[in-house]
Amino acid sequence: MTSSDNARFGVGLLGHGTVGGAFHRLLEERADAVAARTGRRPHVVGVLTRSQGDFEEILAASQTIVELIGGIEPARTYVLRAIEAGRHVVTANKQLLSQHGDEVFEAARKRGVQVRFEAAVAGVIPAIRVISESLAGAYIERVHGIVNGTTNYVLTEMARTGATYAQALAAAQRLGYAEADPTEDVSGKDAAAKMAILARLAFNARVGLEDVRYEGIERITPDDIAYARELGLSLKLIGSAERIDDGLAVMVYPAFLYADHPLASVDGAFNAVTIESPAITEITLSGPGAGGIQTASAVLGDVVSTMLPAGAQPPPPRAVKLVEDVEFSFYLHLEVADRPGVLARIADVLGRNEVSIKSVVQRGLGDDARLVMVVHPVLESRFRSAVAEIARLDVVRGDPRVIRVIEETFEAPGAT
Amino acid sequence: MTSSDNARFGVGLLGHGTVGGAFHRLLEERADAVAARTGRRPHVVGVLTRSQGDFEEILAASQTIVELIGGIEPARTYVLRAIEAGRHVVTANKQLLSQHGDEVFEAARKRGVQVRFEAAVAGVIPAIRVISESLAGAYIERVHGIVNGTTNYVLTEMARTGATYAQALAAAQRLGYAEADPTEDVSGKDAAAKMAILARLAFNARVGLEDVRYEGIERITPDDIAYARELGLSLKLIGSAERIDDGLAVMVYPAFLYADHPLASVDGAFNAVTIESPAITEITLSGPGAGGIQTASAVLGDVVSTMLPAGAQPPPPRAVKLVEDVEFSFYLHLEVADRPGVLARIADVLGRNEVSIKSVVQRGLGDDARLVMVVHPVLESRFRSAVAEIARLDVVRGDPRVIRVIEETFEAPGAT
Repeated sequence: MTSSDNARFGVGLLGHGTVGGAFHRLLEERADAVAARTGRRPHVVGVLTRSQGDFEEILAASQTIVELIGGIEPARTYVLRAIEAGRHVVTANKQLLSQHGDEVFEAARKRGVQVRFEAAVAGVIPAIRVISESLAGAYIERVHGIVNGTTNYVLTEMARTGATYAQALAAAQRLGYAEADPTEDVSGKDAAAKMAILARLAFNARVGLEDVRYEGIERITPDDIAYARELGLSLKLIGSAERIDDGLAVMVYPAFLYADHPLASVDGAFNAVTIESPAITEITLSGPGAGGIQTASAVLGDVVSTMLPAGAQPPPPRAVKLVEDVEFSFYLHLEVADRPGVLARIADVLGRNEVSIKSVVQRGLGDDARLVMVVHPVLESRFRSAVAEIARLDVVRGDPRVIRVIEETFEAPGAT
Repeated sequence: MTSSDNARFGVGLLGHGTVGGAFHRLLEERADAVAARTGRRPHVVGVLTRSQGDFEEILAASQTIVELIGGIEPARTYVLRAIEAGRHVVTANKQLLSQHGDEVFEAARKRGVQVRFEAAVAGVIPAIRVISESLAGAYIERVHGIVNGTTNYVLTEMARTGATYAQALAAAQRLGYAEADPTEDVSGKDAAAKMAILARLAFNARVGLEDVRYEGIERITPDDIAYARELGLSLKLIGSAERIDDGLAVMVYPAFLYADHPLASVDGAFNAVTIESPAITEITLSGPGAGGIQTASAVLGDVVSTMLPAGAQPPPPRAVKLVEDVEFSFYLHLEVADRPGVLARIADVLGRNEVSIKSVVQRGLGDDARLVMVVHPVLESRFRSAVAEIARLDVVRGDPRVIRVIEETFEAPGAT
């Protein structure tokens, strides 16, 4: 450890696959910003893979060890050794934590170091932090999650297209949403490991993978989904962990959800977790499932947390230029005279102001008509001046009505 | 401060209105659980209201000050004094932080104490913690929020019933979702204060309430909502904070959302925040808006955080009984002979096993028919044994298909 150099923070990276590589790049890209936030610049002191790197050397040079090897060994040995050496550990390893969590957490507790693992469950969704920190004082009654993106993608495709399970799985494999061997995902075992981790945190109970009953989606038929729709239900692979009297039930199973359930509308490769408690009612966290860059982002958040003292205040804010004129898509509602050529005149004004129409609905009302349109994104000032010009046309009655329109800008990771 | 009594943690409570009272009760109810988590038992050392309590006495006896007075003064003076005295501060005060945030945060930074304020924005939704901790290393591009439950309730009611703004507002007032004087909410000013706080954190930029352009929902007509539906849009009061070139735009305005936007389906008195970043794509956090108990729960989470060192490991987990037989509602799919009396025989088996039918769809297919039903919640073992008995009936072909059904269990706060 370069204790003489307080301005740097050494990160040892174990594993350099998809997530490891993405994390390495992201750390370099964000190092300056992290330095501004924490006062120390994080840098990768060494990378351990099967063919390169020396674990003890990397350990000696690092303050936090990031374990992205996956699986039980050698990850378990490295993690325990890092803890023993007084290093914080950040890991995305759901197998390790769901099968050897007791050992790892106990070691960290004794040594007084942090073990953070946001990326082990539900990718970038901050379920771990919210359950273990925001809700550290809460009585949690139940956690429901869609914690496997592959199965949610397959079920969504079956519902959308009427495809069979085999067809939808093949499509998911072609698009990179499912592995060549999808057994861990489709059997529910991957979700079971994640639910064991969530249950342990939510209920402070000794729950391991072996305690979770799980079923997968392999036997779901298009018929089930079609009937479900008829009954107003949607089908998801649900992980649930809940208190039952003085015990706990932790399970993974395909389930139909009523349309008003917060997880019912979580589609495609997205993940989501709903936490229920009498005092909070329910909180739902949703976002893309684990892609390389999303998982890397969760790992980075954890690394930054190991760099900060508890509740560290952010640095002084920077002054910033406030922008008032922004591009939006707009809805425009006009009352107009119902006679030929009106739409053409309005379209002409919009066109001269470089406002482009996306959709339009016209409806007669006796002498008057209503013209309702949505325009493509345009600078607000430009649109307002076009509308002012339209308002002066003799065919326009009353004041034009304008409302902004927001389009969804992001797609699920990997979607084309 | 009772430094001789490490097992207790003194909390000074300023304000004892709806949220203050709820927090006081919740803290007492959860004190043992918090002690198990943190090693110290939190207790209220004193309550300051307009008519009782002495601030300096309370301050002297407390380790964390909880400010739930609201408004600028005297809250500002007390908060600054508490920081100066080296106490952590937890507050739900959006006015104070959106107008005097610089002063408060700078004081906390200098004195090395925590100021936590999850409850100031979007009630129980952990937007503050997720932005300032989970995403401390992330480049955030944009934050969109539905951060005012009153206006979201009014707009949802207008869409659901076709009511005018005035009618929907009156209904919200009757149900306790809107104040007698709803101006702060319906004008967008409440949401603007919250967006100023979120923008400051998301972009580490000096943003105050005076920098936020806001419009309210007072001029929205049923016509707008009806046309929007025709165009496939839903109407929400949106707070937005986003990077525009080298500046920021922070605004509140009514906006139409396309159906695939994560905020489009957030209805009623719920709040939600979507955070966009290239590395995370987007995360959405949703939950009930600020009711007394929800806000109190967010305050308690913050208080617990002031009690814990950074990344404190949870205590050793307790052993727990795992329950395998759980009550569920079930979907049952049967292929049966298409002849009279079949449904009666099946219903008889279910009835004898105390399984009660909620809905049923029967459809003929030549000689065979399909019978699809959903039953009310019942212990799984009881249902499985009824199904085994049904499978043995001569009128049943092939294997019965069983899938669990999950109903939404919680209502928005205050809903009847």
